[in-house]
Amino acid sequence: MADEVILLDAHYSMFGMRVRLALAEKGIEYEYREENLANKSPLLLEMNPVHKKIPVLIHNKKPICESLIIVQYIDEVWKDKSPLLPSDPYQRAQARFWADFIDKKMYESGGKIWKTKGEEKEAGKKEFIENIKLLEGVLGEKPYFGGEEFGYLDVALITFYSWFYAYETVGEFSIEQHCPKLIEWGKRCMERESVSKSLADPHKVYDFVLMLRKKYGVE
Amino acid sequence: MADEVILLDAHYSMFGMRVRLALAEKGIEYEYREENLANKSPLLLEMNPVHKKIPVLIHNKKPICESLIIVQYIDEVWKDKSPLLPSDPYQRAQARFWADFIDKKMYESGGKIWKTKGEEKEAGKKEFIENIKLLEGVLGEKPYFGGEEFGYLDVALITFYSWFYAYETVGEFSIEQHCPKLIEWGKRCMERESVSKSLADPHKVYDFVLMLRKKYGVE
Repeated sequence: MADEVILLDAHYSMFGMRVRLALAEKGIEYEYREENLANKSPLLLEMNPVHKKIPVLIHNKKPICESLIIVQYIDEVWKDKSPLLPSDPYQRAQARFWADFIDKKMYESGGKIWKTKGEEKEAGKKEFIENIKLLEGVLGEKPYFGGEEFGYLDVALITFYSWFYAYETVGEFSIEQHCPKLIEWGKRCMERESVSKSLADPHKVYDFVLMLRKKYGVE
Repeated sequence: MADEVILLDAHYSMFGMRVRLALAEKGIEYEYREENLANKSPLLLEMNPVHKKIPVLIHNKKPICESLIIVQYIDEVWKDKSPLLPSDPYQRAQARFWADFIDKKMYESGGKIWKTKGEEKEAGKKEFIENIKLLEGVLGEKPYFGGEEFGYLDVALITFYSWFYAYETVGEFSIEQHCPKLIEWGKRCMERESVSKSLADPHKVYDFVLMLRKKYGVE
């Protein structure tokens, strides 16, 4: 029996894009279902009753939630193609540490850039730049965070690349000026079909962010 | 050459206790170094420059940070004894999901019980009870969260058991009244030497919490 794979997702979510990208890397066919986050489907509420958030991967009727956990699950189930997690336990721990850092620190500082204004926005921008500089340091001279091969930490971070234009435009700063190698890495990743087809268009992300700013009354 | 294993930790930390417990389960000898969190050691700042937090496991000079990542690392490196993560990818994803839930939700709601007062404290207590009821539901009729065997999610949660007395006493409620099976599970886990020797004394945790409440001016 073929696997039944359904993804509950939202187009502009950097977390959802991670799952789309991991599925694309593995060449897995799946049914994509766009959720309206203002009016969540009964299926989403049933499949993720704890957090009620996308993305949710439903594999043969069983739900897996939280993007980093889903990406690890995909890597463990479909292990024959495009391994994502490093095979060495120490490298694996490091990849998990920085992916967790992205979710705990970088996502939050990036959010402050467009969700707040004044001093808080400026503080968010400063933190965000510190965060991406740290990540650029982790990348070093390697082509990918995974080393010679595109891997787990690349998946965890590259989906934010589609939000960079929005962060830069709303925040009035240039990421390339601070982190040129990170931008080179982003362009390199975008040459992969799995990445380019999974990421949202940066200009549409920006329009989406402007819409949210109006909705939240930030402007 | 024998492995050199050093743990930078703080006695009352439920996150640190997880690492002590995982090391005990695996029978790994290590050097324990108590950190003064009010005056962190140069070694801690060097080994965890990003978060500057305990626990940090230093294995052959290389640091691993974040308790759940450390426990997975320990399980992957010392894999011959007492496997902690389930072998099935779906069960593994579920264990990771609930461990993440403990850190994102239960730790926070538990903290509100003793760090705040009035309405916020009551709201924290309500959330905390909802959180542990969910976890009790996950346990179901199994002896351990890992099923017949003590595992990763047991490690992630049992260290909070040493804080239950403090939550109950400060919050003026009984966890057993809401979650009798969770308390039975806690007692069952405490029969394991690895657990009983790794967890702090609940009365001393309570004294520690009272000291923190005074320090933060909650009382």
